This record gives sequence, structure tokens and C-alpha cells, in this order.
Amino acid sequence: MRLTEDLATTLRGEFGDRFQTGAALRQQHGATTTWLESQLPDAVVFPETAEEVAEIVRLCAGAGVAVIPFGAGSSLEGQVNAPFGGVSVDLTRMNRILAVNAGDMDVVVQPGVTRKQLNVHLRDTGLFFPLDPGADATLGGMAATRASGTTAVRYGTMRDAVLSLQAVMPDGSIIRSGGRARKSAAGYDLTRLLIGSEGTLGIITELTLRLQAIPEAVQALRCSFPTTASACEAVIAALQCALPLARMELLDAMTVRAVNAYSKLNLPEMPLLLVEMHGSPTGVAENAQAFCEIARQFGATVIDEARTPEERTKLWQARHDVFWAVCAMRPGAKGISTDVCVPVSRLAECIAAAENKVAETGLIAPIAGHVGDGNFHHLILVDPEDQAERAAASDYIGWLNDLAISLEGTCSGEHGIGQGKRRYLAREAGEALRFMAAIKRAVDPLGIMNPGKMLPE
Amino acid sequence: MRLTEDLATTLRGEFGDRFQTGAALRQQHGATTTWLESQLPDAVVFPETAEEVAEIVRLCAGAGVAVIPFGAGSSLEGQVNAPFGGVSVDLTRMNRILAVNAGDMDVVVQPGVTRKQLNVHLRDTGLFFPLDPGADATLGGMAATRASGTTAVRYGTMRDAVLSLQAVMPDGSIIRSGGRARKSAAGYDLTRLLIGSEGTLGIITELTLRLQAIPEAVQALRCSFPTTASACEAVIAALQCALPLARMELLDAMTVRAVNAYSKLNLPEMPLLLVEMHGSPTGVAENAQAFCEIARQFGATVIDEARTPEERTKLWQARHDVFWAVCAMRPGAKGISTDVCVPVSRLAECIAAAENKVAETGLIAPIAGHVGDGNFHHLILVDPEDQAERAAASDYIGWLNDLAISLEGTCSGEHGIGQGKRRYLAREAGEALRFMAAIKRAVDPLGIMNPGKMLPE
Repeated sequence: MRLTEDLATTLRGEFGDRFQTGAALRQQHGATTTWLESQLPDAVVFPETAEEVAEIVRLCAGAGVAVIPFGAGSSLEGQVNAPFGGVSVDLTRMNRILAVNAGDMDVVVQPGVTRKQLNVHLRDTGLFFPLDPGADATLGGMAATRASGTTAVRYGTMRDAVLSLQAVMPDGSIIRSGGRARKSAAGYDLTRLLIGSEGTLGIITELTLRLQAIPEAVQALRCSFPTTASACEAVIAALQCALPLARMELLDAMTVRAVNAYSKLNLPEMPLLLVEMHGSPTGVAENAQAFCEIARQFGATVIDEARTPEERTKLWQARHDVFWAVCAMRPGAKGISTDVCVPVSRLAECIAAAENKVAETGLIAPIAGHVGDGNFHHLILVDPEDQAERAAASDYIGWLNDLAISLEGTCSGEHGIGQGKRRYLAREAGEALRFMAAIKRAVDPLGIMNPGKMLPE
Repeated sequence: MRLTEDLATTLRGEFGDRFQTGAALRQQHGATTTWLESQLPDAVVFPETAEEVAEIVRLCAGAGVAVIPFGAGSSLEGQVNAPFGGVSVDLTRMNRILAVNAGDMDVVVQPGVTRKQLNVHLRDTGLFFPLDPGADATLGGMAATRASGTTAVRYGTMRDAVLSLQAVMPDGSIIRSGGRARKSAAGYDLTRLLIGSEGTLGIITELTLRLQAIPEAVQALRCSFPTTASACEAVIAALQCALPLARMELLDAMTVRAVNAYSKLNLPEMPLLLVEMHGSPTGVAENAQAFCEIARQFGATVIDEARTPEERTKLWQARHDVFWAVCAMRPGAKGISTDVCVPVSRLAECIAAAENKVAETGLIAPIAGHVGDGNFHHLILVDPEDQAERAAASDYIGWLNDLAISLEGTCSGEHGIGQGKRRYLAREAGEALRFMAAIKRAVDPLGIMNPGKMLPE
């Protein structure tokens, strides 16, 4: 599946300087955010239109060369690695916002637009794109990996945010799936099939995304709980009361210590729940009060703060800096980010078991999570040179995935499968894996689309 | 694909009285709610477990006999017809509610449970299942056809409500897709692929559904607008203000006349918008006032009413009786229900064009719709004996579907494709249809699952 001389010549002829084979660029397009070893593509090409993407895929299909779509490169499970070489298709030049349909609260974008770029563009419309996975990922990459982030509890994930898409399929044809209607019962849901397919079924070349109205008022609370279990119980109680909470983020005590040191904060070093409410001024005030009462019933100390955008930004910046704050706990160590997701009622049990297991193994592995969804992240600090520690971390991740699956959860709430979680997907999907493989073969019979990802060998 | 003597003998041996070939029962399992001709299955079988469903499918696969899943029989596009004969698999005996997980706000049900049965079961939990397509459909049928209804604007469609499912696949294997976690980025989204596949890829044998907390307060408004266009504009303005509206139903003047006559009401005979808000008492009051102001800006007369459950039930009963009210306008005529869905900003234009076209053709075809989604229903009253009128109705439906597609909409918002809309799906999906067909062949290589539905020949 490696790039052939002939194909390189053809691509260079068609794309000129937009076709590159230099080592530095190829290195940048291998996996960089994960502990998986980088596996470089043979070349990188920068298309500017769907037709150019189609041409690249047709040429690669003709030569049996692997095609690896690339956005911001912020995926966490080796999704952009090139284990069989081939051509990395960098979509960042396809970064135009094609239409803002304010009346329909949707927007049409090319896949290389990043979520921050989109929100800057929307700032005068009263609308925003709510999904926030932390990294300033491209929207095409977010769709391809079914990303979500801190606001999923209120606004859903990319599965919900994408109204329709255009994609280049493995034979180089260009399809459209869905229109701009807000719902449809017409045919198989190819949109949802491509969302989360991690480039293994096609390359997304255009997205129509649902937007949300910017809330009139936003209010944030920070609640320090005696235990993670009590924080989880408070969250469940709030969800059952139908309190419209826009974000609910849990940091364990170890993470809070790291954040305090990194972001120069003085948060109490116990489990911390950050809550944000969006709505009308009276609505958020009413909901904040209701949440305070619930949190206090479960032993929390609640600080009602961050009414101004500046204070809120500082608080959420600290949340988003968790990765770096944790990494700073152990200079020289590599931070391995892994996630699982379980039913909310099993979250406290899952986190407690994880904390015990981490203590047993001697790993440093703080927890931060989107607790309203039952989704949490482990940041495991590993000395990259210490093979025993790497093995311990790998064993621990396997144990955690099995635990999540046994609790009726999933091996990935939002990071996807890539290379890192293929074996866990096999365990989780069971008999269903055969049908995933059948669909892959039917759509990509040559197996050129992002090979070595998602489905086990 | 017809039932063979041998297979009939085997099924009778295994299922006894739960295998039936009587004409009346077969007639009842052909399409009854549509204008499509009934096409009877050769037999009806009543499984009670997923394993029994798997056994039926394995036997039918071995004999090359068609399998047609059957729930309440309330689908509107011929989904349960048996154009090639075969075995109708009636799932109504699989009607047990297997688990209510209040902490996770989900429920596990067999596919034959109806939505009303589920809500009766949930009445003491403070939770409810919000989707309301009018008919008391089975939840398996609702999932298979991606049903939605009046509350989709707030709570989404079956696509959003199903957390995970169990299905019997065309080779008789039983798969599970998804767990009880509220989100997942693990593998291809087989759950969403089966939702809306209308029994052509497998038979759903279990569903895990998201529930919602019963709102503390509910308030309903009825607004009479000078034109359908002004009603649509008011709806768009309200959506852009992020007003949390739980239902927004539009009835055109002709429908209001029919409802007045049928339900003994005195509604002003002009376009009527029924709006319902769910939330806290102060929240719904605030939102109701905000909506009133918007509606009046667009010329509406607003009646704030239906604060009590009894009044609301009467109002919504009238909405749900629209089908019968319209049918009563012309005794002896057959009511043909068809739906399309367009971006909300194109809805007024689409309805105005439809009304003009209806006037041109001389058909009687009132409109009622889920206006917050851009989805509306036409109820076309046709003399079933009048071939010219049937042809005119059919031509009109074709014209309307083409119009919706040209407005970036879809040929079905919630009724699905079945037999009736296959040609429109082909127009709408274009090149994507090839991949739908490839997936169908990969998953059901023998083509036994609900043949003659969804995909064109």
C-alpha cells in the first residue's frame, strides 16, 4: 500500500507544491499526541476542493495505495498514523465557511474549518457551535471521530450536530448524505455511518452543522465534594430533576492539585465539580439555586461564581489545561490520555475501582471527566523510556476498558478506536464486529481507506 | 421468496398455534393504513424471544423465503406489505419491559411494547418516553422506521432516543449494538444504521431507550395567524431566541375547519399554531410570555390556555384526531397521509406552493405539521374507485417530493420510504444510493429481509 514512483510522479504533476514528501512534513503528519509510535506517510497532499480529494482517492485506488485523511492531528488513538505508508490527505486548506443559514440555525463548512474559527466567524449572528473537545480540532476530524467534549450533556455530540455531509468514497465518487432538513426518515443513515468511521469509509469534504442560539445568560458553579461518589450522586439527582445543565465536569483531587499548581489557583484539593447553566437570567438563577440545594444535600461546598465571561473563561481554561497541568506534575513524562464511558449510575463505582487499581499499580493517573455523560479521562504519566512502566500503563488501560464494558459502558466515549483501542472494540462489539467488517469490505473493497485503523486485523 | 411447504411444516412443528396461515390474519398483516394495495404474507408467526426470531430468520434464510417484521401495522408507506409473500414476523408478543434504570434515565424494552404501554408503566417514576407519533405504535416499529412526531423539536427522534439495541441479522445471528453509556465513539454506528432501515437489514429484538424527566410545569398556547407564512416566521424567530419549545404544531385553515366539525370545537378558521412549553413554573411562564410577544409581532391572536392536563389533553386530542377529522370531511374517501420535511426557513414557501398546487389540481388536501422541524403532513382525500383522482394524487405527491428535495429537504421527515417513496429516495440520495445498496447486499446477501422496500429495484 506504499506510494509508488508512478503515482508520486502523477500527483506531483497534478498538485505541484501541494504534494510533499519531505521528512519533517511527513513526521508532522504521523501520530504526535499519543504514546503510539509514529508511522509516517510516504507523502502529504493538500487538496483544495472535493474534486481534488476525489482525484487523489481515484489515483490511490488505481494504484492500491493507502489514503489517510488528516485534519488538526489532535486525535488521541493514532487515527492519523500510516502503518502501511501511503498518502496523507491534509484537509486544512479546505477551510472555508460556505454558508451561514441563520434562519435555519445551520452552517455549511469545509472539513478543515476549526471549531474556534467557526465561532469567531459566527460572533455577530447570535448563534454558536457548542461542541468543545478542548483541542481546536477541525470540524471534519471531529465528525470523522465522533468527537464531543464538555458540552455534550446539553448539546449532544457530533452525531447530533451534523445535519448532512458530502464525502469522497473509496472509489473516488462524491456523495451527499442528508439535506438541510432537521430530520429525515429517508433511507439508511449514511451520515451517522460516516460520523465516527475515522476515515475508514470515506473522506468528509463538507459538513452542514446545527448551530445553537447563544444563551442570554450563563452561570457557573464550582462545588467541592467530599468524595467522587457523592459528586456523581449529585449529578444523577440533578439530571433526574431535568435541570438543564450545559456542562458538568468532574476533576478528582489529584487533578485539582495539578491544576492549582499549573494555573495558580487555590481550589480546595478534593473532588471538584464545575457546573455551567445556559438560559434566561431568571432561568439560570433558578436552576443554579436548585443545583446548589442538591449539591449541598450530597455534602458539597458550593461557590457560586463566574458570572462574568472573564471569570468563566479562567475557570474553563483551567479545565482545558488539565492535560498540561497533569503533564507538568512529572517533567519528562509522556501524558497518555485514555477515555471510557459508562452509564452514569455506574460512574462512581467505575472511578472508585479505577482509583484503587491505579494506587495498586503505582501509576500516576489523575481523572477528569464529562460526568453528565458518564465519560471520564485518565491522564497516565509514563516515562517513555521505562518499558516496565509503559507495560503497566498498557495493562491498566486494558483492565479499565474491560471494566467499562462489563459495566454496560463503552471502551471509548469520545477518543475513538484508531490503532490504540482495536482489541477493545472487538471485545465490546462481539458478534456485531462481523457486520462492521462486512460494511467496510462492501464500501472499501480494496481496503485503501485509513488501513490498520478501527477494525482488528 | 414464497413460503415453501417444507418450511411451513417445520415452522408449524416448532411454533404450533403461533404459526398461522389463515386469510383474515394474513390480511390484517398486509398494509392497511395506506393507499398501496395490500400484499399478503403467506403466513404469520408470533415469536416470544430473540432466539425464536433468530430461528425463524435462519430457517427462512435456508429456504430463501422473505421475512417481514410486523409491529402495530401503523406504518404509512407499505412497510409491512409482502410483495413476494413470505413470513410476517409479528413481534407483539415480545411486549415486556425488561428494566427501568431510573438513575440512568433509560429503559430496556422488547420491540412489541407500545409507547403508551411504556408510559403507563413509567407513571410512578417521574420519567417518561417523550416521542409521540400519534399512533400507539410499537417501539420496535418506531425504531425501525425512525419515527418522531409532535415532540421531536424538543426531544429529538428515534435516532436520538435509542441508546442501544439487539437485533437478529439476516443470517440469524443476534448482535448487540451500543451499551447503556450515553455516548460512544466505538466503531461504526450500527445502531443508527438499523434505526430507519425498515426491517431490510435485520429485526430489532430489544431496545434501550433514553427517558426524560416529567417537566414540573407544562403550558400550552394556541395562536391563530393571518397566514401560514406568518406562523412559520414566528416559529423561526422563537427558535433563534432559543426558546425551549416542546411542541409546535401548525394546522392550516382547512384542517382547522375539519377539526372544528369533528371535535366540536370553535377554533377561528385560520392557520393555527399549537405551542407547548415544558419546564419549571417560572420558566414556562417566562417562555410563554416571550412566545406570545413574538407571535403577536407576526399578527397572531394568542390564547393562553390549557394550563390543566384536561384542557391540554383535549387540545392535543384534537391535533391527533386530525387524520379522522379530515377523513370525515368526505365520507367514503380514503385519506392518504404523506409527509415531507424542509429547512424551516423554506417551510412557508413550500406550504404556499403546495396549497397553490392543490388548488390547481382540485384535490382536497389539508395540511398539518411539526413546524419546528420543517416537517408537514398532507392528508389527501381520494375516492378509491376514481382512477383519475388517484392518479392526480399520485402525481401531486411526486411533485411535492421533488419540491421538498429541491428546497434542500427530504422526501420523508418521519413516514419512511417503504414501498411508496422508493423512487423519491432514488432522486434524493443520488450517488449515495449505490452505497446504500452495497450495504444492503453486504448485510443481507440473500435479500430476504423485507424485500421490495426502501431501495428501488
